[in-house]
Amino acid sequence: MKNAVGREIPEEALAVQLKNGRKYEPYQGKGYRDGKYIKKAGPTTRIYENSQESKLLPSIREAVIACGIKDGMTVSFHHHFRNGDYIVNMVMKEIVDLGIKDITIAASSLGDAHDPIAEYIEQGIVTGIQTSGIRGKMGDVVSHGKLKTPAILRSHGGRVRAIEEGDVHIDVAFIGAPTSDEYGNARALGGKGDCGVLSYAAVDSEYADKVVVITDTLVPYPNFPPSIHGVNVDYVVKVDEIGNPKKIASAAARMTQNPRDLMMAENTAKVIAATPWFKDGFSFQTGAGGPSLAVNRFLEPLMNEKGIKMAWAIGGITAAICELQRKGLVGKIIDVQDFDTGAIEDIRTNPNHFEMTASEYANPANKGAFVNKLDFVVLAALEVDTDFNVNVITGSDGVLRGAPGGHPDTAAGAKCCVIVTPLTRGRMATICEHVVTVTTPGDCVDVVVTDFGTAVNPRRTDIIEALDKAGIKHVPIKQLQEKAYSLVGRPDDLEWEDKVVAILEARDGTILDVVRKIKPLEI
Amino acid sequence: MKNAVGREIPEEALAVQLKNGRKYEPYQGKGYRDGKYIKKAGPTTRIYENSQESKLLPSIREAVIACGIKDGMTVSFHHHFRNGDYIVNMVMKEIVDLGIKDITIAASSLGDAHDPIAEYIEQGIVTGIQTSGIRGKMGDVVSHGKLKTPAILRSHGGRVRAIEEGDVHIDVAFIGAPTSDEYGNARALGGKGDCGVLSYAAVDSEYADKVVVITDTLVPYPNFPPSIHGVNVDYVVKVDEIGNPKKIASAAARMTQNPRDLMMAENTAKVIAATPWFKDGFSFQTGAGGPSLAVNRFLEPLMNEKGIKMAWAIGGITAAICELQRKGLVGKIIDVQDFDTGAIEDIRTNPNHFEMTASEYANPANKGAFVNKLDFVVLAALEVDTDFNVNVITGSDGVLRGAPGGHPDTAAGAKCCVIVTPLTRGRMATICEHVVTVTTPGDCVDVVVTDFGTAVNPRRTDIIEALDKAGIKHVPIKQLQEKAYSLVGRPDDLEWEDKVVAILEARDGTILDVVRKIKPLEI
Repeated sequence: MKNAVGREIPEEALAVQLKNGRKYEPYQGKGYRDGKYIKKAGPTTRIYENSQESKLLPSIREAVIACGIKDGMTVSFHHHFRNGDYIVNMVMKEIVDLGIKDITIAASSLGDAHDPIAEYIEQGIVTGIQTSGIRGKMGDVVSHGKLKTPAILRSHGGRVRAIEEGDVHIDVAFIGAPTSDEYGNARALGGKGDCGVLSYAAVDSEYADKVVVITDTLVPYPNFPPSIHGVNVDYVVKVDEIGNPKKIASAAARMTQNPRDLMMAENTAKVIAATPWFKDGFSFQTGAGGPSLAVNRFLEPLMNEKGIKMAWAIGGITAAICELQRKGLVGKIIDVQDFDTGAIEDIRTNPNHFEMTASEYANPANKGAFVNKLDFVVLAALEVDTDFNVNVITGSDGVLRGAPGGHPDTAAGAKCCVIVTPLTRGRMATICEHVVTVTTPGDCVDVVVTDFGTAVNPRRTDIIEALDKAGIKHVPIKQLQEKAYSLVGRPDDLEWEDKVVAILEARDGTILDVVRKIKPLEI
Repeated sequence: MKNAVGREIPEEALAVQLKNGRKYEPYQGKGYRDGKYIKKAGPTTRIYENSQESKLLPSIREAVIACGIKDGMTVSFHHHFRNGDYIVNMVMKEIVDLGIKDITIAASSLGDAHDPIAEYIEQGIVTGIQTSGIRGKMGDVVSHGKLKTPAILRSHGGRVRAIEEGDVHIDVAFIGAPTSDEYGNARALGGKGDCGVLSYAAVDSEYADKVVVITDTLVPYPNFPPSIHGVNVDYVVKVDEIGNPKKIASAAARMTQNPRDLMMAENTAKVIAATPWFKDGFSFQTGAGGPSLAVNRFLEPLMNEKGIKMAWAIGGITAAICELQRKGLVGKIIDVQDFDTGAIEDIRTNPNHFEMTASEYANPANKGAFVNKLDFVVLAALEVDTDFNVNVITGSDGVLRGAPGGHPDTAAGAKCCVIVTPLTRGRMATICEHVVTVTTPGDCVDVVVTDFGTAVNPRRTDIIEALDKAGIKHVPIKQLQEKAYSLVGRPDDLEWEDKVVAILEARDGTILDVVRKIKPLEI
């Protein structure tokens, strides 16, 4: 069955069982489920009616035992410690050492830090992965068909929806926290490995049957105001280190000096400034990649010129947007993730820099997330095709190595979604006829800015009109694709086996695309 | 069937239908449900996948219509505006004017401000009341059997449990808010009628199918950090006034000068100081009534003498505890309700004064509320009997005129619960053989301090030993009751009809007592 972005969704994928019995449908287009109703799931919770002084347990192993983790259960994690995370590997080692098997990992994202999990997949101990990002060895073994069930890949907003709707039921959530008190009131600040916010973990703490907070810095009760509320936490474990502080919070990304990136960033800023939403009080999100980050720099003079300010910025936060705020150009920063030490330092002290939950950020099934009011988002891409579909998950070899993250959520919500990407990367055409995998549907993507020109989605006649009026040149995207192929050649078709190794969920829980098993190279 | 506090619970009460099908049981004693499991309820929520700029509706009437309120539904309210509240009456007027009937009001509390509701009860339009407090005309008509179904009276923690467990299902929550943005992010500060916190309303916003925020002060989006999160809110209505600011926040209660009250307060402080929990880092709650409030004053020199500080204070907050904190004697204040302008002013600016939800405060069915770690609570009472059962709901005439509030929750949680009350009030014995209605069970009450002596619950041999060691005199409670009767005489038995007009739930959802219809006076 072909879905609304023209992808064939095989029965094998549509037949995948969700915990609440909901049936998968192929993607039907943007806004398909708007106005429909869901009944939220509820966890089972133990009644702690009697007083207890502390929820501390001596070790992760004790917590695994106390939570009654059994074969077939689902455990969850967050990715605020990014590549510095020790939690996933520490917990999974205990689970494996206890001989428990058939485990599904439901993480907000997974990365290179979690290479050891690849082995548990190969051993058939980890049999399910639900995540946004999948990379490194884990991406490799999943792409080679080693995971027993298809990995389910979701956007950040889609993950909250899936948990709240009950598509996935978390038996035990393990939440790494820079600080916690003995009751599990946890904060992202004040410890050895501060990560700024714990936004992605909020839904886990609310919907998991059992919740374990793991920290390396115990602080006196009550640790207020908490990001994770102790009333949702069963156990607290103190370990020596929750992660590698240097990898949890990296130094601020240096502004790119690459002339190609700077040119694209400048053109992106000009596109934004030419639209009707570029007025006092606008809202904005941009990524941490080179050209995306550089857009901040080029927006500044345009804002000053027009005498306007940004009301609020959201997203993964970098020092660059905090700097713009210090210059008086941004009202409030609402933060779901911190990319650098500058952003973490800022949220510590800045009264106009706030934490939000992932649901508040991007959940398509609550009563209105921040993305629903977003004016502009600037995003990167591995590939964009002539239908404006974007791929941020599979490399040119078809192997899983990315994360939809907030990409599909912000693209769907923003009034103007700009993808900024070079036309080619090495010998690879970024603008192509068909992306390997659709991770953000073309009906949510409005403008593509490359180093060889800008294209506007023909659906967005309003933006076309605005750019024309401003004298900003744009070309059909087909022309960009042809230019790319003329430079680096038409890519060879990838060869796949039939087996579905991953399902790309749209944020509303329909199926956007599948990833199939890589055909082994014949030598 | 007699329950654990010796009250006969009639079949009529045990047969009352709860929304989740749970069967009522008679009270079984403190901690009966500890360690058991509940599955939390989940609301039905509309999917707001598409962008929308605003949730504003022009009037409360439009919101009632948009929410689809129908005969038989349950609507909810909070009581942070206390006797200044306009919200309940404004909303109920629209519901009644629209001809909707058979409405249950599920409020965190109700008071004299809501006298107009009594008429809707008499007209048979309001057929159910679930609340903590019930007073004034409403208490009168309910006591006289005018409400179609028994009122269900719960403690603040018990209400959260009941909603989370699904005993009561809120169709539409109406949440008055001092400030809100157009998406329903609401705060208790920054408006014309600030109330400090919105703690009681959090559970309504999370568990109601539809949520309407009503404010008189719209502020720019995003109104962060929100007490009520816009992601849970369907509609926002701006009205001229949410309440009478003078009654929402009264000036700080003047410290009592009544020598009897001061003596009891001093004796209470001495009892506290004689127990093993009076050490550095202890935790404390006291009420806003004369002698309770005065305990703060007498604790201060005892803390200074011993060189110790309070780690945290919770509860309904008054200027008195904020003042103690400014003197360096209190670490953190965690706030569920503000009783005076001093407390509201303090939470605006004091970085160690925090809002908590009612669940965090007192819910017996989460994973550990603040009351579970509380060392001392000082509480008032209308009556205490020789089994240490307390009544705070029915007057000496048997009419409903009080509120269990946080009384049963803190009494159950605190290591040492002290009731401070004069032996007699007017011609009424406060210490009696049998309280009219049991609202806090005697197994949760440890010490009773009166102006004629102190009694310790014989269950608490540890406290008896501590007081003996400190040379603090105490007497059997029977002796206090006999003294009271000798002063004012044995009270006449109240005369009741059979009909049950109110059910007093224990915080765990069992039935502690019932209130029957007052027998009309024969003249």
